[in-house]
Amino acid sequence: MFVHTVFFWLRHPESQDDHQALRAGLETLKSITDISTAYVGTPAETRRPVIDHSYDFSLTLVFADKAAHDVYQEHPIHLAFVANCAHLWERVQIYDAVG
Amino acid sequence: MFVHTVFFWLRHPESQDDHQALRAGLETLKSITDISTAYVGTPAETRRPVIDHSYDFSLTLVFADKAAHDVYQEHPIHLAFVANCAHLWERVQIYDAVG
Repeated sequence: MFVHTVFFWLRHPESQDDHQALRAGLETLKSITDISTAYVGTPAETRRPVIDHSYDFSLTLVFADKAAHDVYQEHPIHLAFVANCAHLWERVQIYDAVG
Repeated sequence: MFVHTVFFWLRHPESQDDHQALRAGLETLKSITDISTAYVGTPAETRRPVIDHSYDFSLTLVFADKAAHDVYQEHPIHLAFVANCAHLWERVQIYDAVG
C-alpha cells in the first residue's frame, strides 16, 4: 500500500474560477486506473491547534504499491493536470507513505 | 466523505521500542467500526523538495461523514490510544478534509 497525500494552496484563493479550475483538474486524475482509490477534499470545519486548515484542496491517492504510484507520476493525464493547473497554486505539500 | 490524516513525529525516533509501541497503538484504531478505511504508514523513499518525509508514522482514516469522525474522536479505543501513546510523540500534524 502506498498513500500519496497532497495539499494545495491556491495563488488566488479569492478566485472562485481558480477553485473550480483546480477542482476540475483534480477530478480528471480519478480516471487514472493505476490509482486504487482517490479522494479530493477541502478543509473540514474541525478546529484545533494541531489541525492545519489553511490549504484549499487536498488529494489523497491510494496505490497498491510504489510501482503503481510511479506509473501515475508519469501518466499523461497527470502530466496534463500539472501542465494545465500548476499556475493555479502557490504551494503544494506532499506526504508519501508506505504501509 | 471525511478524510482525517495525521502525521506523527516521535520524541525519540532513535528508539525501536517507541516505533513498535506507536505502531501497535495505531493498529488498535483499525478495530473502530466507525472508520470506513484505515491506513497506517511510514515515509516512502520518494524525495523531492515538496515532499515532507521527516515524520515517523502516518495515519489516514476515511469516514463516511463528519458524524462518523466525531464518534471516532470520542471512541474509548481512540481515547485509550491517546492516553497510552501521547508520551511517544513530540508533534502531530493533522489535516481534515471533506469531499
